[in-house]
Order: sequence, then C-alpha cells, then structure tokens
Amino acid sequence: MRDVIVIGGGPAGASAAIYLQRSKLDVLLIMKDHGTLEKTGHIDNYWGFESTMDGKELVEKGLLQAKRLGVTIVEEEVLDIENDMFGGHKFTVKTDKESYEGKTVLLATGQSKPNLRVKGFKEFTGKGISFCAICDGFIYRNKKIGVVGNKKFMSEELDTLSNFTDDIKVFTNANELTVDVDKEVVTDKITEIQGDEVVKKVITENGEHEVDALFIAMGTPSANDFALRMGAMIDKNNIVVDDKFMTNIPGLFAAGDCVGGLLQIAKAVSDGAHAALSLNKYVRAL
Amino acid sequence: MRDVIVIGGGPAGASAAIYLQRSKLDVLLIMKDHGTLEKTGHIDNYWGFESTMDGKELVEKGLLQAKRLGVTIVEEEVLDIENDMFGGHKFTVKTDKESYEGKTVLLATGQSKPNLRVKGFKEFTGKGISFCAICDGFIYRNKKIGVVGNKKFMSEELDTLSNFTDDIKVFTNANELTVDVDKEVVTDKITEIQGDEVVKKVITENGEHEVDALFIAMGTPSANDFALRMGAMIDKNNIVVDDKFMTNIPGLFAAGDCVGGLLQIAKAVSDGAHAALSLNKYVRAL
Repeated sequence: MRDVIVIGGGPAGASAAIYLQRSKLDVLLIMKDHGTLEKTGHIDNYWGFESTMDGKELVEKGLLQAKRLGVTIVEEEVLDIENDMFGGHKFTVKTDKESYEGKTVLLATGQSKPNLRVKGFKEFTGKGISFCAICDGFIYRNKKIGVVGNKKFMSEELDTLSNFTDDIKVFTNANELTVDVDKEVVTDKITEIQGDEVVKKVITENGEHEVDALFIAMGTPSANDFALRMGAMIDKNNIVVDDKFMTNIPGLFAAGDCVGGLLQIAKAVSDGAHAALSLNKYVRAL
Repeated sequence: MRDVIVIGGGPAGASAAIYLQRSKLDVLLIMKDHGTLEKTGHIDNYWGFESTMDGKELVEKGLLQAKRLGVTIVEEEVLDIENDMFGGHKFTVKTDKESYEGKTVLLATGQSKPNLRVKGFKEFTGKGISFCAICDGFIYRNKKIGVVGNKKFMSEELDTLSNFTDDIKVFTNANELTVDVDKEVVTDKITEIQGDEVVKKVITENGEHEVDALFIAMGTPSANDFALRMGAMIDKNNIVVDDKFMTNIPGLFAAGDCVGGLLQIAKAVSDGAHAALSLNKYVRAL
C-alpha cells in the first residue's frame, strides 16, 4: 500500500508529489492529461520563467522534474476511488488499467470541466440535475432518468443508475459515443433544460424528452465527482478543505483549482507544497 | 506618483510586480540583492524546472521575466519609508540614491536577517533590546544607549537616537564599519547581553559596556524594520497581514517570507500573485 496516491499531474499534483517524494514517502502519481493548461497558449505570469511558455510545455517540465526526483508516474484514467468504510485509511483507486491502494489520497485534478452551458442548467442544479449517481440515484427509483455523457464515466454512472430504474435515456450532447450502452441514445445537442420546481424536460435541437432527473457525467470524472461519491463536502463546485488541505474525510486531501480560490498556477503550486507537508505529518502519525 | 512600489526582487516581489504590470498599474520594483536565495545552492522543489538550479540563477530569471513584461526595476538600497500621517495614501520610499512616491507599498523583502546569536539576546528583546529607534528612542532620553550595526542603516538609527541622548556607543560586532560616525565605536565581537529585569551590559570579547538600551540595526533594514517604524503590527517577527495581504496601515501590503508561514518559494510566489490582485482592486478603488 502506498503512503499517498496523488491524482492529477498539473501544478498542484506534481508540486505535491515532488515534496512528498523528498519527504521519503512512497508516492504514486496518477494522471490522464495536462488538464486546463493543455489548452493554455502563453504563460507569462508564473514566476521564474524568462520566456513565455505554453501550458503543455510547462506541465511536461514539471513532470520531468518529478520523475528526475524519483516520483512514480502512471498515465491512466481514474474511474473510481473507494474509501474504507470503517475509516481504516485504505483508499482503492481504480483506473482503466489497474487498481491501487493508498493510505491517503490527494485530489489535484484541477478545475471541474465546464458544465452544460444551456438555459435552465443552473436553475435546476440540485433540483433534479445531479452529478453523482451513487449519491442521488436512489431518489429516482422507477422514475425517468436522463444521463449526459459519452465516455466510460457515463457508462459507469449508467450502471449505477440501472439499479434504480430501467427508464433511462443517454444524451451525448452531440459528442461521439465511445462506449456501448443498452439504453436509448439521444445524439443531438441539448439546448435547454425546462421544469417548474424541478426538472421536467430536456430540450434538444430535434426534440423534447421528459425526465424526472438529469445526471451529468460528461468527459472523465473530476475531483468533485470522486469527492462527492466518497461523501466529501463540496461548496459552490469546490471541494471543501481545512487549513491542512484535508477534506471532511480522514486521509482524503485536495489541492489546486479543485479547492477553489485563485485559479492561477502560482496558487496551485503553493497548494501542492502545503498539502504535501500536511500529508507528510499525517501519514507519519498513522 | 506610482500606483505601487514593490520592495524586494525575490519570488514574492517579482511575482507581484509581474501581476501588477499586467494589470496595467504603474509599478516600481526596488531591490538591493537576491536575499535568502542568493545563498541557496540547489533548488529542486519549485515546480516547473526539470533541472536543479541555484537560487541566484532563479531570482535572475524572475527579474528578467519582470523586465521583459515591462516592470521598471531599480537596484537601490531602501533606507526609509514614510507614510502620510493623514492617511492620504502617499508613501515616500527613500533609497541611498533617490526618493520615490507611491500610493501603496508592497513589502516583499524576505525573511528578517538573523539576529545576534548570543546569550541574553532573546531574554532581553523588548526589555531594553529594540529594533526601532523612532519607536523606542524617546524612552531612553539622556540614558546610555548601544547601537549594533556597521552600515548606513546603523548611522540612520544613530541620527535618530542622537536626538535623545549623547551617550551612545556603536558596536560593530566585528564587522567592517562602512560609515563615518562621531561616537565611540566598539569593534570586537559581542559575546553576551546581561541584565536583571532589563538590559544592563553588553559583554564583548575584550570588554564590558554598560547600557540602558541596545538598538539593533545590523545590515540593511528589513521589511520588519520599515513596518515597525510605520506602526505596522508584527507578531513573532512576522508582519501581520489580513487575507488581502494588507497590514493594519491602509495601503501598506506585505507578502512572502516576511509575513511568515511556509518559507518556500512556491508560497512566496503565490503570496505575490494574491497580493498583486488585492493591490489592483485597492488602487483602482482609491
């Protein structure tokens, strides 16, 4: 069992992994892509770089730095994280290839992906729009459920929801479906969410679809998705952490954009360093 | 009058100056040396650098970055900062060469220099050992005063103290005296500070010297020295700031090692970014 599993290879995750490795802890960093920075063209305001750089290049440098210092890095997609229900400081991180165990987990997967930018989305979030099948699925037993997504994460959520109802429609929101599903699939773009006190209808370019609930599972799961499933507190789309960067779940830490605050590299790097120093104390006291 | 005068060219100061410049504020950065990092050999844990680097090289990169983005940098020694007594958001920063005016000041001069490492120093700090002639000089009117220091900062403090008493001895603590003084100078090393409830004697390698107070003015003034003189709150040798990085003096901000917390580059850089964003809002609201 690893001391710490860091999820995310951006500024917060790699910075933390570097500090953890240097504290001689057994660290594993799991990452999938370069996150928000992958699409960032010119970075000028992160101190220490004379020339402008693009985000991907900078993230690569950080990963090479972590590797040079001995951090083990695997490029896999995290699909689920389970924590020991008896508080035994055992987290199981399931990826598309392997399963890893850690005494602690640091979530550093960056900002949540943009949500559906359509009319009614904000209004009905928490009023029938949900981000967590395990958390809310049971509320909609035998009801009509819509699931938005097109990848493996969506099919995982679909599996969970299938325990509660058979009446499920999948909305790809005009993205390519990369998994097999045995439910009705709506492939055109979502244009509006309608309802009264709660969600009633998903309007797409070519149709209207009645639903009692709409589960969002676009792209790959974010830190928030994992945190929610484990019962961590979320406030305004940010994972709530204390001044040690620990969530309300013992041993589950979070740092960087996913905890909110200034969405800047400098802050994420600093978060990573702080979280690593807290983790070091925490793990050694276990 | 500048919008912001940043004092210090290390991670916190340069990071702040970069952000301020990009917010299109009129910024001046005044720096003297490379601070603590100048003597740091191998830096491995600041995210984004594949190879190890020494502190001086890294600070240079940060300054070149600031210059490239248009920050005006002067290499001068700050000797004093005065704030408008009527709260008019006018700070006058006096260096060894010029005098500059700013609506706001950001102190980012790093960690305070090590104090005298001799027996009795801690014990009598605040009990006759003082760090601020303007703050405490008047208490010792017509008393015997010792001043520790060997540079311009010491002679400035000496001038202030000369308003209160003529009975002043200068202790160079075995450092080379680089300024002219018209007082008795003790050139051997200080080995102990003695007293009962308050300071009574300075013991040097070759002698004993009775004093009623001992003013410390070694090296160049630190952020703490400036902050103290302006009446800013200090706690355990750190400048006290709020969550916007402002001290209790309106318009006087501080960031990086001088405000305490984790003494790491990552944290100082993040502080600088945060302070700059607060300063931007603050200056625009003036």
